[in-house]
Amino acid sequence: MINKKLQQKLDSIRSHRVFDITVISVIIIAAITVGLKTHSMPEWLFQFITIFDIVITIFFVLEVSIRMACEDKIRNFFKNGWNIFDFTIVIISLIPVADSEMALVGRLLRIFRVLRLVSFIPELRKLVEILIKTIPKMGYVIVLVFIIFYIYAVIGSILFHDINPTLWGDASISMLTLFRVATFEDWTDVMYQTMAVYPLCWIYYLSFIFIAVFTLLNMMIGVILDVFLNENRECDTLQKSADSVNARLNKIEQILNEINYRLTKK
Amino acid sequence: MINKKLQQKLDSIRSHRVFDITVISVIIIAAITVGLKTHSMPEWLFQFITIFDIVITIFFVLEVSIRMACEDKIRNFFKNGWNIFDFTIVIISLIPVADSEMALVGRLLRIFRVLRLVSFIPELRKLVEILIKTIPKMGYVIVLVFIIFYIYAVIGSILFHDINPTLWGDASISMLTLFRVATFEDWTDVMYQTMAVYPLCWIYYLSFIFIAVFTLLNMMIGVILDVFLNENRECDTLQKSADSVNARLNKIEQILNEINYRLTKK
Amino acid sequence: MINKKLQQKLDSIRSHRVFDITVISVIIIAAITVGLKTHSMPEWLFQFITIFDIVITIFFVLEVSIRMACEDKIRNFFKNGWNIFDFTIVIISLIPVADSEMALVGRLLRIFRVLRLVSFIPELRKLVEILIKTIPKMGYVIVLVFIIFYIYAVIGSILFHDINPTLWGDASISMLTLFRVATFEDWTDVMYQTMAVYPLCWIYYLSFIFIAVFTLLNMMIGVILDVFLNENRECDTLQKSADSVNARLNKIEQILNEINYRLTKK
Amino acid sequence: MINKKLQQKLDSIRSHRVFDITVISVIIIAAITVGLKTHSMPEWLFQFITIFDIVITIFFVLEVSIRMACEDKIRNFFKNGWNIFDFTIVIISLIPVADSEMALVGRLLRIFRVLRLVSFIPELRKLVEILIKTIPKMGYVIVLVFIIFYIYAVIGSILFHDINPTLWGDASISMLTLFRVATFEDWTDVMYQTMAVYPLCWIYYLSFIFIAVFTLLNMMIGVILDVFLNENRECDTLQKSADSVNARLNKIEQILNEINYRLTKK
Repeated sequence: MINKKLQQKLDSIRSHRVFDITVISVIIIAAITVGLKTHSMPEWLFQFITIFDIVITIFFVLEVSIRMACEDKIRNFFKNGWNIFDFTIVIISLIPVADSEMALVGRLLRIFRVLRLVSFIPELRKLVEILIKTIPKMGYVIVLVFIIFYIYAVIGSILFHDINPTLWGDASISMLTLFRVATFEDWTDVMYQTMAVYPLCWIYYLSFIFIAVFTLLNMMIGVILDVFLNENRECDTLQKSADSVNARLNKIEQILNEINYRLTKK
Repeated sequence: MINKKLQQKLDSIRSHRVFDITVISVIIIAAITVGLKTHSMPEWLFQFITIFDIVITIFFVLEVSIRMACEDKIRNFFKNGWNIFDFTIVIISLIPVADSEMALVGRLLRIFRVLRLVSFIPELRKLVEILIKTIPKMGYVIVLVFIIFYIYAVIGSILFHDINPTLWGDASISMLTLFRVATFEDWTDVMYQTMAVYPLCWIYYLSFIFIAVFTLLNMMIGVILDVFLNENRECDTLQKSADSVNARLNKIEQILNEINYRLTKK
Repeated sequence: MINKKLQQKLDSIRSHRVFDITVISVIIIAAITVGLKTHSMPEWLFQFITIFDIVITIFFVLEVSIRMACEDKIRNFFKNGWNIFDFTIVIISLIPVADSEMALVGRLLRIFRVLRLVSFIPELRKLVEILIKTIPKMGYVIVLVFIIFYIYAVIGSILFHDINPTLWGDASISMLTLFRVATFEDWTDVMYQTMAVYPLCWIYYLSFIFIAVFTLLNMMIGVILDVFLNENRECDTLQKSADSVNARLNKIEQILNEINYRLTKK
Repeated sequence: MINKKLQQKLDSIRSHRVFDITVISVIIIAAITVGLKTHSMPEWLFQFITIFDIVITIFFVLEVSIRMACEDKIRNFFKNGWNIFDFTIVIISLIPVADSEMALVGRLLRIFRVLRLVSFIPELRKLVEILIKTIPKMGYVIVLVFIIFYIYAVIGSILFHDINPTLWGDASISMLTLFRVATFEDWTDVMYQTMAVYPLCWIYYLSFIFIAVFTLLNMMIGVILDVFLNENRECDTLQKSADSVNARLNKIEQILNEINYRLTKK
């Protein structure tokens, strides 16, 4: 599809340091532009930024195109999750947003260009990959915490529904209220209001706080433990060394016994 | 009591994957039903859910019965804590709640069916077991924290009783107020009110916060330490390897000395 | 001073399990009494508690006397910090508090009897000893945190004095306000008030929060590190084992070389 | 430039314990003076402190001069970062502040004299050095957290601008508001206000809190991990010992095989 020579040339462009610096600069400028637009500014600056926005969009299309062209097969490009991520962000910003209602959505989508900073800087990419990897480890803990919230939310919406419907109207709203209680945000106001009707309902709040904090604490320790288990691999190599030493000694002892036997036989 | 063949058939039902998936689906549906009921809904849906509720109850009775029948002796069924847990939840939901006053209690008790999710999914069961196991380790720390709260609560209720009886009325109320202070929830409002009478009472609050946070911090480290001690077992096996190497070397040295002696004797 | 036989008899009393249980029961009852007194109650109960209080005081005097009498020399009794602690608490509660003004102080001092729970239960005593031991380790960190608070407090009281004297009146009051900010308690209210005059003063608050939290985080890690260093002793014994193995191997190699030399010589 | 004998005399002064104690006392007095000035006081005390301030300034100039004179070359003095720190603080406090407007700046600058406590006490200096060293380790995490805040801030200022301009006016103000949300400070007030317009905007807040807290949690674990990696060096020496043992055993086996060969040959 693409000429070989052109591909080589594109590849040399992509590998060049100047390319990297240019792309990162444009991403940062695009990020600042997105922030600037939220400030009030004179008309001419606003128009300049709007035009500049189009330039950035074209640049991004070109950049992704070059990177795609560098791959032997376009399929390879999409094998990397970060490439898909970049491609999606660029494609999304191409959607025309002439419609005034869609303009808001268009502006919101353009913000995600800032995330290209993450996909472009390897250190940040690594950090995000680590963060994503730790999510499944916490999977069941999150399910357990959700169950705790759900049970308390249903109890809360049954008992306190008539006291304050905006806080305890139904199970969904109650879960939001409980999340608020879990962050200790004006939780006593919530409690005192219901205590006026049920004087013993502090048991409900305190037990919830204790269980929620306790589970969270264990979640943290769980993650730390996990880190430990990875550390232990180092301990494993030590154990292997010790085992090999033992095996060696076995052999040496055998040889020695042989020697000893020969000497006595003589 | 139960026919052998029937028992075998029940056992094959229980072991089947479809049984597991069915039970878990019903538990999740029962959980959602419980939440749905807190939302306002049309009359027909409410009646449908009420009927559906009876279906779920019957299903649960059947499920527990099958699991009980599978055991050779019913006594074995009750040896497992989680089985008792399931049995209790199912029995409780059988209690008729025709009475309007009891209806509230009935609805509340039905929520605990959601907990069957925990008892049915092995990973969640394991997590809860770990959480329960860590409680006794913190036993004395909790006693100590309680004593600290109690002393401060009595001091608070003696000194600040007349300033604000709703916060410092007696030792029990004061403990709730101190818990609020410990969560940093509008604690300055509480403090400024009492500082108007006793200008030096910030010492009371700050000392309490420091002691409470400090003890909590140590509690966390205590749990982490405990994790360490379990890790050290790995270290212990390494130590054992090292010891066995030493013992081996002892023996080798002995043999070598023997050989050496023989060679010199000759 | 005290008859030998009497001393032996007292010692047998003190060592008896019944003695322990009695003392601990009286301490707990005394603790509950102290809490009960803060609740409103009928006249007869109040008088009963007042009389009961005297009984407890006499019991405590007897108990400490027995423990003192059991020691060969009274000096030995005061060598243990916890004994001094107990003695002081008992002596303090002997002070007559007929005066109405002193009555408040007397009631407050009586609360500390609850602390006798800590000095009597060995596990709690151990816990408190661990907590006290960790304080000096944090010594300089506390000094550093205090310096940070002090500098920010002086800056705050100079800049914001005229905006809100109750919060920033002088350096002492400012430190209390900053502690409030450090606990995130309505800190934005404090900030917005000063931002109305100095729009850039968010730098003051954010830098303070970051530095304070950062130092605190490091304090925690410091304590955890300390725990590690103690763990490393285990690693040290492993290192020693490894070193002894190496020394052994040195010796074995030497012997082998000797043997080899003899064999070639022959 | 400076007479050799004088330099030796200055050096003996500087090395003397009395010099250390004097300097530290003056620093502490200067720190207290700075705090005292923020309190209201009688005219004569204020004048005394003003004069005392000049004495302290002169003392500090002398102290730094002595330390500079002790060095063979003045350049060496400036090789130490803490010396530059001290020098800068002293020089700054020499700036005359007769002007009433500048007086405020002068007072503010004088506060930093308190920091000389840090530069003078070796333990505090070490602590600050450790704190500074950990900053670059968190570098990219801070960048990542900043990107998260920035994206949410731009989204917030686009969506919620018209609801409350003082909170969501532009991206900068929104970042401050989000920081407030991250500290859980009255975040529900902020949320409820926007939820009145966008009922689903709780997703915005909850996702932000989860992502922010999650990244923070990982940052903490990252630092702890780093501590671990340093601990592992100890493990590395153990590994080296094990490797050397293996190498030794190799050699021993070789010698033994040699002996064995000789014995069979005979």
